Amino acid sequence: MSEQSCPGFRFAGAAGGIKKKGGLDVGLIACERPASASAVFTANRVKAAPVVLSQRALRAGGGKLRAVVVNSGNANACTGRQGMLDARRMAAVTGDAVGCPPGAVLVASTGVIGQPLPMDRVEAGIAKAGAGLVEDGFAAFAEAILTTDRRAKTAARRVRLGRTEATLLGCTKGAGMIAPNMATTLTFVVTDAAVVPPLLGRTVKRAVEPTFNAIAVDGDTSTNDTLAVLASGRGPKATGKDLVRFEAALTDLLDDLAHQLMGDGEGVHHVVTVRIKGAASEASARAIARRVATSPLVKTAIAGGDPNWGRILCAIGNAGVPIKPDRLDLWIEDLRIVAAGAVAAEHDEAKAAAMMKQAAYTITADLHAGRAEAHYLACDLSHEYVSINADYRS
Amino acid sequence: MSEQSCPGFRFAGAAGGIKKKGGLDVGLIACERPASASAVFTANRVKAAPVVLSQRALRAGGGKLRAVVVNSGNANACTGRQGMLDARRMAAVTGDAVGCPPGAVLVASTGVIGQPLPMDRVEAGIAKAGAGLVEDGFAAFAEAILTTDRRAKTAARRVRLGRTEATLLGCTKGAGMIAPNMATTLTFVVTDAAVVPPLLGRTVKRAVEPTFNAIAVDGDTSTNDTLAVLASGRGPKATGKDLVRFEAALTDLLDDLAHQLMGDGEGVHHVVTVRIKGAASEASARAIARRVATSPLVKTAIAGGDPNWGRILCAIGNAGVPIKPDRLDLWIEDLRIVAAGAVAAEHDEAKAAAMMKQAAYTITADLHAGRAEAHYLACDLSHEYVSINADYRS
Repeated sequence: MSEQSCPGFRFAGAAGGIKKKGGLDVGLIACERPASASAVFTANRVKAAPVVLSQRALRAGGGKLRAVVVNSGNANACTGRQGMLDARRMAAVTGDAVGCPPGAVLVASTGVIGQPLPMDRVEAGIAKAGAGLVEDGFAAFAEAILTTDRRAKTAARRVRLGRTEATLLGCTKGAGMIAPNMATTLTFVVTDAAVVPPLLGRTVKRAVEPTFNAIAVDGDTSTNDTLAVLASGRGPKATGKDLVRFEAALTDLLDDLAHQLMGDGEGVHHVVTVRIKGAASEASARAIARRVATSPLVKTAIAGGDPNWGRILCAIGNAGVPIKPDRLDLWIEDLRIVAAGAVAAEHDEAKAAAMMKQAAYTITADLHAGRAEAHYLACDLSHEYVSINADYRS
Repeated sequence: MSEQSCPGFRFAGAAGGIKKKGGLDVGLIACERPASASAVFTANRVKAAPVVLSQRALRAGGGKLRAVVVNSGNANACTGRQGMLDARRMAAVTGDAVGCPPGAVLVASTGVIGQPLPMDRVEAGIAKAGAGLVEDGFAAFAEAILTTDRRAKTAARRVRLGRTEATLLGCTKGAGMIAPNMATTLTFVVTDAAVVPPLLGRTVKRAVEPTFNAIAVDGDTSTNDTLAVLASGRGPKATGKDLVRFEAALTDLLDDLAHQLMGDGEGVHHVVTVRIKGAASEASARAIARRVATSPLVKTAIAGGDPNWGRILCAIGNAGVPIKPDRLDLWIEDLRIVAAGAVAAEHDEAKAAAMMKQAAYTITADLHAGRAEAHYLACDLSHEYVSINADYRS
């Protein structure tokens, strides 16, 4: 068994001609038996048709799925009534190809929005992918879901459950902008572990919180964001202490994918962990970390390698959380630059600037208001970001 | 009486040597009698010492002030205990210069943060300004409060109250970044109208809401933001219907200043009014307008002149307000580009792009969910913004 396969699943990527630039654009995952499934979808009120359909399918199916179908190149978003008909058709064609009811198919789309799906190409692509399903096809699937990503992003983990090992395979796409519209993040994880749907649901929710729910490229959420985890049950059972180990492995895998996603963001040169500690609650720590990570002034300071602690303090103060500014300490890596709300004696501008040249580093703030903490991944707001998003014309 | 003067007030601007580049950096307003005063301060939890002091002065003085002192070049923010001592000293020196108790002085500072005020220069500047107070000195005051602003921003209005006219004079500064830290917005309005403090307070609060509370350069709030209105009472009374007229004139003046502020923002080429109508409540309309106006994806689309309606819909959906996407209409100026959540039949990409070349235009969304509406001023996120904020080193 290579890192391309996971017992109980077959994968495929096919070229349907949906992407203008060509290449794989239809991805398929098929499970031999109904897999436990849990998914997290965009919080945006404007949801693409496949998101609405997939939410319904998971509810109606009691958390069991037989297949996942993804097309890249067209998001099937803001496409009205036709969009829903097309998403249903994708589920039906996939069901035919895999041999399962359409209600057991999770559908995801990514690409341009506001344009109807080219259904002839999509259907042909699904049929092609269905005929090409193989056990070691995960890399092809991972490639088929990409849009403007510079590279495929996959990760694998093994975790001992009882006497044997379970496999987790994951892939993600799309932290950057998707021409000509917004970023869509699609993430899929398969495992052979045996986990019943309610436990899988809680595990996924907890694993997503410090990983995919704690990243910010530009603070916007797309209409199509989907993260799904499927467990075939062919491998060892994840219960009791083993469930804790499974959750740790899943969180670690998602953390790996989240870092890859940020690093592949458009115009991203620095991935910065913003860590807020000493908060009164985890919620307030998270709100502050998010505010710092999404502040344009902090993000341009990261781009410029400018240890501008005033901007960071300002962003902390803007999170809507009561804080005592005169207690606040701030570090870049292990160099304290602010002590009790004012510039620290040991602050060394040149040293701090040198640390900010690194591709990855940590900014830590201690509020001295409690014991809770949270982190968020931030990136730079660079010229490339503006170029890609302002100068690009479809 | 020119547009440089307002009965009951004297003004001055002096060069104290606080700004590295030289020029006027201490501004003074003195009122012959205690003026009714109302001010709105930053919502940031990290507040500069002068903000904390001025809030206390207004509370303790029952909404009466005799003077305003402003220094530019140094924000006296994140300066710890010494910062508060220095702010108090500014009030005391101003009280000496003007002949009033220190508690009747509003203090404001803007410029670099985290550095102690050069008090010898500040005190000398205040003394110089005190000696130079003249009735027609408003332009000098308006210039003294500037930092990286490209030009002074002033406005004047006359409004008939009863049989005579009242004057309103206003100035503002600083929508862009203040090197090397965040933007501070300072706005001062004087009027000779007679308004008791409680009425003035309510009037100012209402006038600020659709003007200075509805602008977004980068969505960050500085530690020093201050907007103050002083009424000398030398002119006609603003009561009953005249108070309504006074509020309209104040709102109009603040709207004028807010537009000037946005237009002078760093790297700003387009000032866009984002108007959300058909909302269930004004609060939800405002939340959506703000979300659209602060979305980096929308702001880069504005910079690129790209009629990217998908991004606007996405930002609308990200505001945390329940909406029905399939009811949504969207216009650029008078061209409908989205109808019922999908691309409108009359959408003309070239025409829409041409409209977005204008220095000022309006994006309107109708949610068809009610009758409330609100607007927000947005600007472009351009290469200059990144250059100024990322590449600048202090």
